[in-house]
Amino acid sequence: MSETGEQETPTPEVAAEVERQAAAILRGTQYGDENTRATMERELRAKLSEAVRDQRPLRAYLGVDPTSPDLHLGHCVSLRKLRLFQDLGHQAILVIGDFTALVGDPSDKNALRPMNSAEQIAENAGTYQEQAFKILDPERTEVRYNSEWLDALNFRDVIELASNYTVQQFVERDTFATRIEAQQPVYLHEFMYGLMQAQDALKLKTDIQLGGTDQTFNIMAGRTLQRVHEDPPQVAVLSPILVGTDGSLRMSKSTGNYIGIDEPANEQYGKAMSVPDSAIGEFLTLGTKLSAEEADRIVDELEKGTLHPLEAKKLLARAIVSEWHGETAADEAAAYFERVFAQREAPEEIPVHAVAFAGELETEVALADLLAEAGLAASKAEAKRLVGQGAVSINDQKVEQPQATLRPGDVLKVGRRRWLRITAS
Amino acid sequence: MSETGEQETPTPEVAAEVERQAAAILRGTQYGDENTRATMERELRAKLSEAVRDQRPLRAYLGVDPTSPDLHLGHCVSLRKLRLFQDLGHQAILVIGDFTALVGDPSDKNALRPMNSAEQIAENAGTYQEQAFKILDPERTEVRYNSEWLDALNFRDVIELASNYTVQQFVERDTFATRIEAQQPVYLHEFMYGLMQAQDALKLKTDIQLGGTDQTFNIMAGRTLQRVHEDPPQVAVLSPILVGTDGSLRMSKSTGNYIGIDEPANEQYGKAMSVPDSAIGEFLTLGTKLSAEEADRIVDELEKGTLHPLEAKKLLARAIVSEWHGETAADEAAAYFERVFAQREAPEEIPVHAVAFAGELETEVALADLLAEAGLAASKAEAKRLVGQGAVSINDQKVEQPQATLRPGDVLKVGRRRWLRITAS
Repeated sequence: MSETGEQETPTPEVAAEVERQAAAILRGTQYGDENTRATMERELRAKLSEAVRDQRPLRAYLGVDPTSPDLHLGHCVSLRKLRLFQDLGHQAILVIGDFTALVGDPSDKNALRPMNSAEQIAENAGTYQEQAFKILDPERTEVRYNSEWLDALNFRDVIELASNYTVQQFVERDTFATRIEAQQPVYLHEFMYGLMQAQDALKLKTDIQLGGTDQTFNIMAGRTLQRVHEDPPQVAVLSPILVGTDGSLRMSKSTGNYIGIDEPANEQYGKAMSVPDSAIGEFLTLGTKLSAEEADRIVDELEKGTLHPLEAKKLLARAIVSEWHGETAADEAAAYFERVFAQREAPEEIPVHAVAFAGELETEVALADLLAEAGLAASKAEAKRLVGQGAVSINDQKVEQPQATLRPGDVLKVGRRRWLRITAS
Repeated sequence: MSETGEQETPTPEVAAEVERQAAAILRGTQYGDENTRATMERELRAKLSEAVRDQRPLRAYLGVDPTSPDLHLGHCVSLRKLRLFQDLGHQAILVIGDFTALVGDPSDKNALRPMNSAEQIAENAGTYQEQAFKILDPERTEVRYNSEWLDALNFRDVIELASNYTVQQFVERDTFATRIEAQQPVYLHEFMYGLMQAQDALKLKTDIQLGGTDQTFNIMAGRTLQRVHEDPPQVAVLSPILVGTDGSLRMSKSTGNYIGIDEPANEQYGKAMSVPDSAIGEFLTLGTKLSAEEADRIVDELEKGTLHPLEAKKLLARAIVSEWHGETAADEAAAYFERVFAQREAPEEIPVHAVAFAGELETEVALADLLAEAGLAASKAEAKRLVGQGAVSINDQKVEQPQATLRPGDVLKVGRRRWLRITAS
């Protein structure tokens, strides 16, 4: 901020650079209403203007709560935006919410989240950072754990912090209002999540906070606190929420409709192929690093009917696998998919069956039990007979032993037309 | 609690002693509904039964927040009940809420209380204890400051604590519901007061918590927390809220309708005489140490018309002054009141004028300003003239100086029929 608080007229060079950066940052953002968008755009330009003029990088902050061991494509939407800030010369701050994860963000939930254990969280925090660096430039990322400042708060500090917010502000939030309306309990500690994120913003002296649209309330809570402390309020850069592979619910680990960035290539490819046609566009735009132009071109051809949805999904699946495993792996996954599914009708009709891998890459199962459970045989007795007759194959390899080793993405075939794709539960 | 959790049949001696104690403890208590009363009475008898049988004193806890320097008769209602526990051989725990006072109890308020400064609180805490010992036996009182355990809580502990309560439980409380209905802000930190009191009960391993009926929610919050920690829940012993000298609002420092236990005898006497007739019974029962029988006898005569309200108030005023300053002081205050008010119509018609004493026993004022301000003279010029003419007296002593020293309770007279009683603002 200029010391006098006045807005100087920028030079044409500064103005052009601000416009270039603002356009890139704002591309694909989403705000709840036009007023919020207008305010955020104006404040973003003001901040960029000073940053460019004074050659002071902006402090752009994104928080991720390590509530599960792996990042998925849903997390990547804002991570890509944070990477953009790095590419524009700004300072990226990645906050691993090891403290906030204790409570769990109630923003995206219509029910109480279980509180997470400290051990789980510590374990997840490590993999999160490692995985985030597949998108971010580690050299230019300030990684912080929010237990650093949140653990330092005592009860008096929490009271002081809470005194900046009204109960009504919380009660009127969509997620809480819905649960209160439905007479479901909202626990008092769930209100504290927004306070914690606000404290993050205050402590980090952020200029920008990135997040999904579900983070609007938490980011605004940060602005409130910064104002109370006479710091300039941060600007919210909000991205749409990526849908899951089911095409309707938000992507999340707990719903099981996610594509993890560390999942095996075949698993990613198969999951991408299972996305309903209606969600292809959204996945291309938010779930890959294709440029806006490339994504738009594919969607355009899809709409005009010059590209078959199946082909569009192959482009999507290839884009996802090549980003996380490279071009060669993408070629192999595509070939594998074609080979395994060569004889059958349409890939989207393959039923999926979840198997517990307990964190391992593969697991051994009793084949007859699995076939009966998944409905590929009418009974265990029939399943055993089918195995004995050599009617069962895994990835086109005939199996005749009662035990088989499975990996996620494996495809089982019984007889000529009964298929099953294995996924991790 | 018996180790097996079973209720043994008490011996006739134990049963009789339990009944004696329960009758004394329950006398004059008040509960929101009959269910609560029934539960509390049952649990009280069970606790008394074990206490008498095992000769283990019950731990009876009362908290006072040092938000002003002085205790008033309103505070004494539960303090007397705590003293009763001492007299029955139980352990009294007086908690000076030096931590809770930071937030201020929103229970009795229909608006946000200002947060209190740590300095004010520390200063008040000293006088509170000293004044409470005018009722309690210091030798048998465990005095605790709740900052001892509440200052030790960090953010994680607060989250854990908050997770035991739902937002709905708070929102539905009378005081909050009314403010939310009226679209007045309720700040988030106000929800924390109940959590703190619950933590007090947990840490002190209380059997009993005393308080006014407005403490029902906070005391029940303590029971919830004790259950979570598998401690036996405390029993609420709730007393009615004493009305103020105005006869309609609850007695409180901030409303100015209080009789302080450390106020001068003449001030207490005069304030008691200003109580409206309709509140005499309540003051006799809750505001003095008269026995229930004595109080009932006076009320009875008052209702039958065999005792004039003015005489009943004199009995009330005398009971109050003699409790806090002794019989001699009560005689003197009564005589003073008679002498000063001898010539005028009826004491309740004397107007009262509030003067700021800034915590001192007396203060010097410009007499002409005061007379004009209080409306005893039409203008400052007239007031000066009246003083010059010797038409002004204080407590029947003529004043001819422009400055005068005033104490609370002083009575100014101008001419023959204009009166004013000085009170502390």
